[in-house]
Amino acid sequence: MDQVIARLEKNKQRNIELYEAFLRIPSISTDADRKQEMHQAAEWVRRFFADCGIDGEIIETGGHPVVLADTGPVGNGKMTVLVYGHYDVQPTGDKSLWDSPAFEPTIRDGVMYGRGSADDKGQVLTHMLAAESWMKVAGKTPVRVKFLIEGEEEVGSPSLIPLVKEYRQRLACDYVALSDTAKLDADTPAITYGTKGIVYKEITLYGPEQDLHSGSFGGTVTNPGNALAAILAFLRDGDGRVTIPGFYDDVRELSPKEKAAMAELPFDENDYLATLRAPALTGEKGYTTLERRWVRPTLDVNGLFGGFTGEGQSTIIPSKMMAKVSMRLVPDQVPEKIALAFDEAVRAAAPKGVRIEIKDLNACAPYVSPIDSPGMVAAMKGVEAGFGTRPVFIREGGSLPILPKFKEILSADSLMMGFCAPNCNAHGPNEFFSLQDFHNGARAAACFLHYLATRK
Amino acid sequence: MDQVIARLEKNKQRNIELYEAFLRIPSISTDADRKQEMHQAAEWVRRFFADCGIDGEIIETGGHPVVLADTGPVGNGKMTVLVYGHYDVQPTGDKSLWDSPAFEPTIRDGVMYGRGSADDKGQVLTHMLAAESWMKVAGKTPVRVKFLIEGEEEVGSPSLIPLVKEYRQRLACDYVALSDTAKLDADTPAITYGTKGIVYKEITLYGPEQDLHSGSFGGTVTNPGNALAAILAFLRDGDGRVTIPGFYDDVRELSPKEKAAMAELPFDENDYLATLRAPALTGEKGYTTLERRWVRPTLDVNGLFGGFTGEGQSTIIPSKMMAKVSMRLVPDQVPEKIALAFDEAVRAAAPKGVRIEIKDLNACAPYVSPIDSPGMVAAMKGVEAGFGTRPVFIREGGSLPILPKFKEILSADSLMMGFCAPNCNAHGPNEFFSLQDFHNGARAAACFLHYLATRK
Repeated sequence: MDQVIARLEKNKQRNIELYEAFLRIPSISTDADRKQEMHQAAEWVRRFFADCGIDGEIIETGGHPVVLADTGPVGNGKMTVLVYGHYDVQPTGDKSLWDSPAFEPTIRDGVMYGRGSADDKGQVLTHMLAAESWMKVAGKTPVRVKFLIEGEEEVGSPSLIPLVKEYRQRLACDYVALSDTAKLDADTPAITYGTKGIVYKEITLYGPEQDLHSGSFGGTVTNPGNALAAILAFLRDGDGRVTIPGFYDDVRELSPKEKAAMAELPFDENDYLATLRAPALTGEKGYTTLERRWVRPTLDVNGLFGGFTGEGQSTIIPSKMMAKVSMRLVPDQVPEKIALAFDEAVRAAAPKGVRIEIKDLNACAPYVSPIDSPGMVAAMKGVEAGFGTRPVFIREGGSLPILPKFKEILSADSLMMGFCAPNCNAHGPNEFFSLQDFHNGARAAACFLHYLATRK
Repeated sequence: MDQVIARLEKNKQRNIELYEAFLRIPSISTDADRKQEMHQAAEWVRRFFADCGIDGEIIETGGHPVVLADTGPVGNGKMTVLVYGHYDVQPTGDKSLWDSPAFEPTIRDGVMYGRGSADDKGQVLTHMLAAESWMKVAGKTPVRVKFLIEGEEEVGSPSLIPLVKEYRQRLACDYVALSDTAKLDADTPAITYGTKGIVYKEITLYGPEQDLHSGSFGGTVTNPGNALAAILAFLRDGDGRVTIPGFYDDVRELSPKEKAAMAELPFDENDYLATLRAPALTGEKGYTTLERRWVRPTLDVNGLFGGFTGEGQSTIIPSKMMAKVSMRLVPDQVPEKIALAFDEAVRAAAPKGVRIEIKDLNACAPYVSPIDSPGMVAAMKGVEAGFGTRPVFIREGGSLPILPKFKEILSADSLMMGFCAPNCNAHGPNEFFSLQDFHNGARAAACFLHYLATRK
């Protein structure tokens, strides 16, 4: 193992260059015009494996391609781990908010800035580099390592589940390992044992078939903008609770033990607030900030658009108005049930005089895993070796749609090793990943394989 | 007068061509890039007057220029009328909704389509053509006619009021005449004796300084989108009443006589609804549709923008969210008072965790004039002669910011002769003006001058 670590150390600069090359590919999965770049990113991953002697192939899907790779059997009844990650990234959003262009990776003060630097190109690359280092040093990995690197994580992984079902034999494993979550704070690496689910909707309200003069006709028809505000406001109360009937029915409350453990985590509300750069911490009454983040469901307006939005004024009653709204779900909420309850609540809240269209943009289940399994122990030891700090067990507010499906289809629990900072701007401007964390992560991933091999 | 009418009849085709030339100039006053086109439109108007022997000049302002013209004294103690109009137009909005381009005037089935066809290029041109016809036939107009044609009506006329004050001697008149309102319905020309005021605001809510991942951070900070919805929803109740404290304090209720007259107007709710092409007629509880349109104040969301609005999904908590909101005021509401009450209500309704910025985009007072003055009688006779139908007295939900100012500065009441259809899409796509109404309007304007001359 020492040689593997030494090789990672020696190759730091070269690994950064590989990282930059990966980041330069604008593989935005939400953007229908980026099909070519999506293929380019998949091919980049496949070639990486080929270059270090790991069998890999690109599997075409109805959407963006998936890369599968396999180091092959290692014998001796060792475990098999499936490393999961994604090469697709979020859209850039408002480009003017980026200090350097999203797809021109830029290092400032030892930190890599660029879209995908943390979510997930940088983090999945640490596992790729770990496997490479084992292959180059030892000719094999200590346990069999399979890779499943997809291109649709940011759009809800529509092609992945059928693929995992189809390839369930080839993907068979004891654990799934992934780094698509964050540390607790800059100093504390974390293993995440639960993620939230999601239901994402787009509501469009249609009023008059064309924009109307708000003076001549105002007061006599329902304004879709006013109606949308009324509906959205109706979905939450003043205490930050979602008012959709039945929304909390299936929410599993924390056990007293979990609650106590969460309260003991090194978490400073002031630091957290400073990181978010928000006016204040707010949220559902009766819960701590960490509980709100990790174990309480939420409802957020993600976007609003309609009517006159240019400079100055235009006195119209808009003919339509759109909102993107998503809910994060926690165990044991059921996405299908919540999606239905949402639609019903929206329709019930709508005033007379508008037509409602609701689109389903995404849905996935929440996930929670045991924290005392052999795989979890190996993950903890690996991260401790990589970062020099014992990781904490945390949960995550983000969604990883595939995790509950891995459990269902492969009967494998997921080990989520978080290497990046919690404020890495994963979906915002100036996404970043500290190079120190990048190198530590690769080392942790390499050590994890070692500790997993010594277990069975 | 017969010769004047005959000349208008004979010149119909030529007048349409002039009309088209005027419409082709994209004089959008809200658009900072259209300064050149604004000058071009003003110069077009000035040249029209020069060509028919009326003294005219362009007055530069801090904003868009104003055209002044004057036929000169006519003697015999006749009255003076100031014709007011505007050469600026609204933005086009969504271009895909126009059946023919907004600035390529197109005649279909005897109807002129194009931005400004009704509001106000087509209507002000009827008065210009009437004066021209008198000048060409008689060498003078029956009463002294002054013209004041501005380029900032659609942005609240910021330069006009100082100008009217400065030129108050030169603009001195007995009445202001204008055609910037509509008929009651396709068959019924109307004289409008009251307009609503307006207060137009832009609210921006600022949350975190950058977009945040709605999973990782959702539930712990205030989402400006949810907050905006809550604020906007709070401003109106379920009965369509505005909940801003004091909002209705100064509203003058209709006299029983006015209420009865309004109820007797030929107004068909089904026809009106069909014209608007909206799902239903709705509005403030306890009032008829016409009362809601004309004598009840309103609050409308004109536009919403913020967060992720592209195709698909992006799971962000937006860093900011914007709403354009306007209120239409009725006598005797005071814009300054309402603007202040609005700001206070918005701030009171805002949840913790957002910073609020409110911009004032426009404000003007409501206006109402007597209906039995000599000027009003001449206007009624003129319109009846032009259209062959006795006009009705109505009020208008739109705002004409300058009218209360004319009253204040020039001590002159305004005569609003509406020639275009009430569903002319003044601020929407496919704005139109029937050519029959255009020609009738020019005849009415010519006759009005005659009847005004016979009064004093």
